[in-house]
Amino acid sequence: MPTTGLIVCSTRSPRAGLQISTFIHETIKHAHPQASITVIDLAEWSLPLYNEPGIPSRITSAEGYMHEHTKAWSREISRYDSFIFVTPQYNWGYPASLKNAIDYLFNEWKGKPAMVVSYGGHGGGKAAAQLQQVLQGLRMVPLESTVGLTFPEKEIMARAAMGEDLGLGGEGGFWAGEKEEIQRLFGELVGVVEKSS
Amino acid sequence: MPTTGLIVCSTRSPRAGLQISTFIHETIKHAHPQASITVIDLAEWSLPLYNEPGIPSRITSAEGYMHEHTKAWSREISRYDSFIFVTPQYNWGYPASLKNAIDYLFNEWKGKPAMVVSYGGHGGGKAAAQLQQVLQGLRMVPLESTVGLTFPEKEIMARAAMGEDLGLGGEGGFWAGEKEEIQRLFGELVGVVEKSS
Repeated sequence: MPTTGLIVCSTRSPRAGLQISTFIHETIKHAHPQASITVIDLAEWSLPLYNEPGIPSRITSAEGYMHEHTKAWSREISRYDSFIFVTPQYNWGYPASLKNAIDYLFNEWKGKPAMVVSYGGHGGGKAAAQLQQVLQGLRMVPLESTVGLTFPEKEIMARAAMGEDLGLGGEGGFWAGEKEEIQRLFGELVGVVEKSS
Repeated sequence: MPTTGLIVCSTRSPRAGLQISTFIHETIKHAHPQASITVIDLAEWSLPLYNEPGIPSRITSAEGYMHEHTKAWSREISRYDSFIFVTPQYNWGYPASLKNAIDYLFNEWKGKPAMVVSYGGHGGGKAAAQLQQVLQGLRMVPLESTVGLTFPEKEIMARAAMGEDLGLGGEGGFWAGEKEEIQRLFGELVGVVEKSS
């Protein structure tokens, strides 16, 4: 089974991103019990705003970076065969926390398949589309489809922003219907990795 | 004359962004000597990755933020009638430094006209287009056209990445031809501010 890094892209405090990522993780494990998925929480990584002197595309090993945080991040991302990005939408785009984590590296991402799940008042589709373009710029292999998780009401979106429990465990609450699409896309992701290896 | 904040969006060290911003500033002042333009260098602001607990769209004064750096940033952006964003393109998108500075605020940007100048190996047009969408998400009023400054050779792009002097002063070097378009768009920006006030 290929290894997958599931990246929690929101680093806000409070945030909804971690419980949404857990929902996605559990949804996938339910359909693909053998899946090898590791959660990578950008809030725990706390990367500072890009502060390397070099250009990532010209650096081919962790030792080529100046800072310890970059070397560790390079080693982490090098470990996985594929990625799932779980991202909020801020002002019709991806969050700085995600773009910063991406731009620190290049060859560690290159050539690897990726799946995008976005969330927001309208499902975060604009952030997903911008992110897909960035993944292409990185020479990754994004799946054609993305999953957009829409908060069903303004009041739930407000609760999400406050980091309150959205009841996504078990049956999946208001996103029960989206589980099948998440499972299907993960199957596609694994297929792309296996075909390319 | 309306006031304009010219935002230097790259915070890399070394970087080309500051000399490119200076080139744009001087180009505009040459055609519009009365222009009231203030350079806002994101590298000097050193905002940390977003760490406010609140949602910017619901905050209507600097005092509504928790951190001193956000209050100061709110006061700074509130000062200007319009903005020029000078941005590099990283991996087919805008840099995290810029998105982070944008996402800290909302009502301070809202309703204000903006002009985008991007630079890169192909002029940074993909970053400019993504940024235009974000400015619309912020309810700003971006000009329809953007300016893309293309490094004429790979070797010059490498020198730019190292922060070397690109000879943009005086006659403007390899971007002499782009001066007119920058001046024309600034005139348009001022026109939009004056029409809306």
